[in-house]
Amino acid sequence: MKTTTEYLYIETPTRYEIRDITDDVATIVGRSQVVEGMVLVSAMHITASVFVNDHEPGLWSDILTWVEELAPFGRDYRHQQTGEDNGDAHLKRMLLGHQVLLPITKAKLDLGPWERVHYGEFDGMRRKRVVVKVMGE
Amino acid sequence: MKTTTEYLYIETPTRYEIRDITDDVATIVGRSQVVEGMVLVSAMHITASVFVNDHEPGLWSDILTWVEELAPFGRDYRHQQTGEDNGDAHLKRMLLGHQVLLPITKAKLDLGPWERVHYGEFDGMRRKRVVVKVMGE
Amino acid sequence: MKTTTEYLYIETPTRYEIRDITDDVATIVGRSQVVEGMVLVSAMHITASVFVNDHEPGLWSDILTWVEELAPFGRDYRHQQTGEDNGDAHLKRMLLGHQVLLPITKAKLDLGPWERVHYGEFDGMRRKRVVVKVMGE
Repeated sequence: MKTTTEYLYIETPTRYEIRDITDDVATIVGRSQVVEGMVLVSAMHITASVFVNDHEPGLWSDILTWVEELAPFGRDYRHQQTGEDNGDAHLKRMLLGHQVLLPITKAKLDLGPWERVHYGEFDGMRRKRVVVKVMGE
Repeated sequence: MKTTTEYLYIETPTRYEIRDITDDVATIVGRSQVVEGMVLVSAMHITASVFVNDHEPGLWSDILTWVEELAPFGRDYRHQQTGEDNGDAHLKRMLLGHQVLLPITKAKLDLGPWERVHYGEFDGMRRKRVVVKVMGE
Repeated sequence: MKTTTEYLYIETPTRYEIRDITDDVATIVGRSQVVEGMVLVSAMHITASVFVNDHEPGLWSDILTWVEELAPFGRDYRHQQTGEDNGDAHLKRMLLGHQVLLPITKAKLDLGPWERVHYGEFDGMRRKRVVVKVMGE
C-alpha cells in the first residue's frame, strides 16, 4: 500500500470564489505513482467547500447566487456574537460539502466527462489549505 | 490490498427519478472478495446524485418535492445561456451529494437497519454512469 | 494493510442535538495503530448527520435553526403516511451530509485548526449508531 499527502494553499482575492483545482489534484495523483486507489480532497477550513461539478463560469455564478439565497450573508447569526461576520460561510460550505473522494484507475483520476473538482471559498482573502491524500497501490 | 472497479449504467425513463441501487453495489462487493475495506459509489455525471436514505417511495417523493422547492426547474440560470435547460439539476445534485463511501465488514456492506444507497437522477432519459470502486483486503 | 471497525452509540436526551465526537474518533484512530490512512465516520441511521464544522455552540444553534428553516418539522410529508413524524429529519440529515472521511497522517487525525467532527441528531431520544472504520498502514 502506498499513501501520499500533499496540501494546496489557496488565497482568493475576493470573499467568495469558485475555482477549478482538478489539475492540481491530478498532478499530485501522478506524483504518488498510485495505479489503483482513491484520492481524498478536503477543505481544512470550515468556511470553504470542495465539490465536483461542471467547469462553467455561468454555473459557478449560479452556485454563488444560490448559496447566498439559502444561507445569506449579514443575518443575525448567533455565531457572530463571537465577533465573526462569517456565519453564512459556515452554512454555505455545508450546502456544497467540504470533501470529495475520487477514484484512481489505471494511474488516472477516474472522472466522468464533465466532472471537475472545485474549491469554493466563502470567506476569502486569507490563506487556506486543502489536504490531498492518495491511498492505493 | 485488493481493488475492483465496476460501472453501473442507468437510463431513467423520466427526467427525475430516485432509484435504490443497494443490491447492485452489494453484488459488486461480493465479486470483489474484499472482506475488510470500503466501497465508493459515485455519480459520474454532474446532474445526478448518490445518497443513503430509506427505501420508502413516500420519502422519495418528499425528496423530489423538496429539491424542486430549493432549486427549482425553469429559473433564469446563467448556466442555461449555454443552451442547456438543466441548471436546476446541477444544484439539486449538490443538495443531496454525489457520492457515498460504504464500509465493508466481514465481506458485507456494513449498513444500518434502514440505510439503502440511492441514485438520484435530475436530468434523465439519457445513459448515465456510476462508478463503484472497492478497496480493501 | 490494517483495518479497524468500531461503533459509537449515541442517545440524545432531546429530539435535536449537535455533538462534537472528535475525541471519540481520535481515540479509535489511536487504538488502530494506523500511521497513514483514512477513517470513515458515518451515521448508520437515516435521520442523523455526521459533518465537520467549528466547535462553537452559537454556530450549532445557527445550524439547527437553518435546517429547520429549509426542512421544517410538521409538514405534510408523504413519508409520514407510514405513521412516522420524522420526515423533516430525513431531509435535514441530507443537508448536512451523513459521513466524513478524515485523513490520518503520522498517526494523527490530519485536521485544520478549527475542524471538528460533529454528530447531528434530528430524531433523538433513541439509541443510534455511528460506524468508525479505519483503513491504512
